[in-house]
Amino acid sequence: MDVRIGDLGEFGLISKINEIVKKEGKIADGLSLGIGDDTASILPRHGYEILVTCDSMVEGRHFLLEKTNFFDLGRRAMAINISDIGAMGGRPLYSLISLGLKKEMLLKDIEDLYRGFLAELNPFGASIIGGNLTGTGNGIFIDITLIGEIESGKAIKRSGAKPGDVILVTGYPGQASAGLKVLLKSTGDPFLMNHPIVDFYLRPKHRAELGMAVAKAGLATAMIDISDGFLGDLGHICEESGVGAELFIDKIPINEQLKEVAQILGTDPREFFFGESDDYELIITCNPKDVKKISDIALDLKVTVTEVGRITESKKGIVFSGEDRSAFTAKRGSWDHFKD
Amino acid sequence: MDVRIGDLGEFGLISKINEIVKKEGKIADGLSLGIGDDTASILPRHGYEILVTCDSMVEGRHFLLEKTNFFDLGRRAMAINISDIGAMGGRPLYSLISLGLKKEMLLKDIEDLYRGFLAELNPFGASIIGGNLTGTGNGIFIDITLIGEIESGKAIKRSGAKPGDVILVTGYPGQASAGLKVLLKSTGDPFLMNHPIVDFYLRPKHRAELGMAVAKAGLATAMIDISDGFLGDLGHICEESGVGAELFIDKIPINEQLKEVAQILGTDPREFFFGESDDYELIITCNPKDVKKISDIALDLKVTVTEVGRITESKKGIVFSGEDRSAFTAKRGSWDHFKD
Repeated sequence: MDVRIGDLGEFGLISKINEIVKKEGKIADGLSLGIGDDTASILPRHGYEILVTCDSMVEGRHFLLEKTNFFDLGRRAMAINISDIGAMGGRPLYSLISLGLKKEMLLKDIEDLYRGFLAELNPFGASIIGGNLTGTGNGIFIDITLIGEIESGKAIKRSGAKPGDVILVTGYPGQASAGLKVLLKSTGDPFLMNHPIVDFYLRPKHRAELGMAVAKAGLATAMIDISDGFLGDLGHICEESGVGAELFIDKIPINEQLKEVAQILGTDPREFFFGESDDYELIITCNPKDVKKISDIALDLKVTVTEVGRITESKKGIVFSGEDRSAFTAKRGSWDHFKD
Repeated sequence: MDVRIGDLGEFGLISKINEIVKKEGKIADGLSLGIGDDTASILPRHGYEILVTCDSMVEGRHFLLEKTNFFDLGRRAMAINISDIGAMGGRPLYSLISLGLKKEMLLKDIEDLYRGFLAELNPFGASIIGGNLTGTGNGIFIDITLIGEIESGKAIKRSGAKPGDVILVTGYPGQASAGLKVLLKSTGDPFLMNHPIVDFYLRPKHRAELGMAVAKAGLATAMIDISDGFLGDLGHICEESGVGAELFIDKIPINEQLKEVAQILGTDPREFFFGESDDYELIITCNPKDVKKISDIALDLKVTVTEVGRITESKKGIVFSGEDRSAFTAKRGSWDHFKD
């Protein structure tokens, strides 16, 4: 029979979670005290900085339980945090997981959720070191704090881009956005619903290994992960660095998969590329002389990198260039949680 | 006119929050990168451990907006996290705040919430270094991750209590529980509703300064803050230390205020003391020879400390002794978020 978490109670559930974390998780370097006290405790490495980020997902807003499963949900919630640590060039190490749950939820689903978290943490030898459980009346939430480390002074900020720098992007952004549109439209079209592009939304991949390698080699001037859409996140770099950008409209990477789905959906694929999207690809800016080195590192990690523009003086803002420029005017937009 | 956060949008709200944090907050030692990048960054002090905790509050479960105000809500949410760091003996330094908000909320309320956070952080020179904002359809939540530091090896765990140790408690636990009962009963009785005991629930005080001083002096064998009720939290110490406890029923500190309210509510005040309660007082165990030193430190900080029992061999569990023992059988209970 399936056990409801309301039957287990808070401490019963904590004990079940601890079992999974101990049995299927790793013990991260430097962890001096894990789950089970007022706080966790870490002994940081000398000469390293500690990176901290948090990101939350709310039912009905960031996920629909009928469109995903708990394992994928756990992976996704952890991957988006790993992506933030990776976008600084850091190595993920310790996570705290705060859940708002409903008492009618099943233990096996919560266990799958934690297996999803661990599937993303284990490749880094990273641990779940604490968290909080609470009941919610309406709609569950997952809030993760992830702590990482980076050699002191090596973190790649948003604020270091300089005029003349090359703008690189990894992979093929826009697919997550197209995948979400397929999910939300629920056309019932089995070709679309089972299209691999849906995976880019439900099971996104971070680029933390690439971020770590680029930071270690000291090759990037700025870096950010795409969680607000390409233009939104390039905009963050421009704002923090006090620069503008010129984008080569003819050079942006759009793969056949995105073209195919965009055509069925009747949308210009570049709208998916530039607009609101959670792709967790990286935007990297660097000195032109370092493009080859970054591409080689990416190649080793089997990641595609494309040169899509240049950083310019601030007063120009973000502009497009290329033959197709007039045919395409991208409206700058990014996901905003409160706008009506 | 009052501005709704839905009118500001996510990035508009973030910018308003940054203003308050910069203008009214402190920059904690060791902070190398604050709000505004993929992650925050900290340069930890050599020879110190990093302590991390998180705790969340959910509307309708941990607070009712009609029974509190946003400033008090912010203070309370931060104080309960500071209490956890303090219960390890640590100094709070950096916080990340994750909020689930409704778009019809007012900017001035969110500003008051942050002023509440800062009112608790500023005395420690601690900072807000990051966070996350998201919309929720139904019911807001506040999830705080708090990071602190402690000299390496000085953290006081739950697991160090030994048979023969004295059990000390600070202040007069049970008042928060009685205050909550007054709030929830909403008798309309103005004497009760304006009774200062309500403050113990709405505006709890942590004992972090005492925890820090006791840890620095190396005087405690175990320490925990009372967030699940006295018996629940003493139970955590017993479980983690593999010990039992004898409690002197005639010695537990019940002040006139709690007696008065308990009488009106028709409840034995000891039920409030032992049962589910969020008092954020400390339970400290120590070698009998250190009781005087701890009491002297507490006296300097104007905190009352009472000796309420002894740690015993594990097999005895938690038992009561004293003349009034047979007249009072406390049912072990603690707040459980999922039990039906």
